[in-house]
Amino acid sequence: MVQTEERSIAIVAMGGHAFMLRGEKGTIEQHQRNAAEISQVIMHLVDRDYNLVITHGNGPQVGNLLLMTELTNDQVPPMPLDVLVAQTEGSLGFILQQALLNQCAKVKIDKRVVTVVSQVVVSRSDPAFSRPTKPIGPFLTKEEAEKRKEELGWVIKEDSNRGWRRVVPSPQPEEVVQRKIIYDSVRAGHIVIACGGGGVPVIKRQDGTFDGIEAVIDKDLTSSVLGTQIKADILIILTEVPCVYLNYGKKDERPLGAVTVTEMEKYLAEGHFAEGSMLPKVRAILNFLERGGKRGLITNPEKLSEALEGHAGTHFVGGY
Amino acid sequence: MVQTEERSIAIVAMGGHAFMLRGEKGTIEQHQRNAAEISQVIMHLVDRDYNLVITHGNGPQVGNLLLMTELTNDQVPPMPLDVLVAQTEGSLGFILQQALLNQCAKVKIDKRVVTVVSQVVVSRSDPAFSRPTKPIGPFLTKEEAEKRKEELGWVIKEDSNRGWRRVVPSPQPEEVVQRKIIYDSVRAGHIVIACGGGGVPVIKRQDGTFDGIEAVIDKDLTSSVLGTQIKADILIILTEVPCVYLNYGKKDERPLGAVTVTEMEKYLAEGHFAEGSMLPKVRAILNFLERGGKRGLITNPEKLSEALEGHAGTHFVGGY
Repeated sequence: MVQTEERSIAIVAMGGHAFMLRGEKGTIEQHQRNAAEISQVIMHLVDRDYNLVITHGNGPQVGNLLLMTELTNDQVPPMPLDVLVAQTEGSLGFILQQALLNQCAKVKIDKRVVTVVSQVVVSRSDPAFSRPTKPIGPFLTKEEAEKRKEELGWVIKEDSNRGWRRVVPSPQPEEVVQRKIIYDSVRAGHIVIACGGGGVPVIKRQDGTFDGIEAVIDKDLTSSVLGTQIKADILIILTEVPCVYLNYGKKDERPLGAVTVTEMEKYLAEGHFAEGSMLPKVRAILNFLERGGKRGLITNPEKLSEALEGHAGTHFVGGY
Repeated sequence: MVQTEERSIAIVAMGGHAFMLRGEKGTIEQHQRNAAEISQVIMHLVDRDYNLVITHGNGPQVGNLLLMTELTNDQVPPMPLDVLVAQTEGSLGFILQQALLNQCAKVKIDKRVVTVVSQVVVSRSDPAFSRPTKPIGPFLTKEEAEKRKEELGWVIKEDSNRGWRRVVPSPQPEEVVQRKIIYDSVRAGHIVIACGGGGVPVIKRQDGTFDGIEAVIDKDLTSSVLGTQIKADILIILTEVPCVYLNYGKKDERPLGAVTVTEMEKYLAEGHFAEGSMLPKVRAILNFLERGGKRGLITNPEKLSEALEGHAGTHFVGGY
């Protein structure tokens, strides 16, 4: 077996939908079943002797918390978005770490798993703060939304004729506060779950103190920053499609196998990838490779094993 | 300065009321202000070169989550109690770690702080499971409570004429699943927040897999177990009174300064300490000392500094 010190570090990013499939209401049984399935998939990486950091989204889960908050804010003091993100780091971290430990026990692999509640620094001067775009929480009537705007200072927006929603900024992640501890734990061979929901967004003041801020950070971009900070070898983004496509959904759709950074930057400039969907994933991997990462992979859980053999997925290879 | 390797480890347990004072509704501002205050208190231990693990309760916070769950369970799938505990490990961990980092920045101490989402093993054969006693969540009418009993299998109980409540088991903690990672992080000099709310209760099956279970674990008893597992030198329990008293609240009330294990066991047998109040704290420290811990201290945040000088608090000294 390869020694711990020599093992490659893989950082694996998965969506909040890995735990709560589209159409599911998000019961605990659904979360547990999905977490068990994704844990089996993660074992492909454990089998290949990678040291692992796992990040995950929390969109549908924080959506449920926002709905609960909205329905009960006359009786329970509402917690701000940064605290709700921290809540999902706790709950999804627990569900996933337990599923991973159980999978390890089943296949008799001795691994420890830890969830680190992660703060991620964003800049107060990020342009995202003057132009909030990310819709969150339940749909409201125009009247309800206007009331929140007045009372709580929300920015609101009509969302595809389904109603009004709060929109929040989605700033760029700059650094993960707990990076050193994550680095030490993953080097020690533990599976580390970190930066759930993209991490809890915080502002760092001149004097070095932090302040939570109501925003959401794209989990793929955070994974890229964390991957760079912990010197990961490969950034793997698990999504809902088996690979990246050119002309996605069109007649001349073409899957991408292995691509260089230069090729991918060209496709990016040509507008092949959708904002809020494949675009941040491609950007995340390009950023990672530009800052010292060796490899990137985009695929879905079903294809991960094949992809690790080079027979599926979109592989980003170094070299310009 | 003392080298990291030689530093003593202190494990400090505080109540959920450290973040949400009695009478407070639990707004984020209240949580942040209280966390900032307790962080200043914690600095007394950092100043004295202790390596620190901090555990905390979550009673009032999980109470708020249970109330939200109760009010919205027709619209959002209710999460079980173990997941709610994990949520508070995330939210309170974030609030406390940020307050601690901010306090360190203010006094220019370079410390890292990490919150570890902690699973704590309890035994399925613990007698607590056949006799649930711990009331949780909102007060209900008898009809509401009976309905939950029928639909969800709750055990319910009338609570001091204020209404009906759900009662859950409060089993003994046996081991902290993430103990190795907590041990490594605290030895490395990081402040570790762990076992929030007493930890997420889990059952360990024959095959080594875990299963979450609806129960609450006393956070002082968990702290005792964790303290033993990470070979802490001192277990400090911060509570609402400056020290332990004999004949508490009576005319002949007497504060205890330094006591031996033998003395304390005598007082315990004489029934001086109240169940659900001082009793588990005294038991927690006695267990810790019996299993290799060196010292124990019970005091309140206001008196901690004096107590560390030996001028306040109740000190448990080794030796029978």
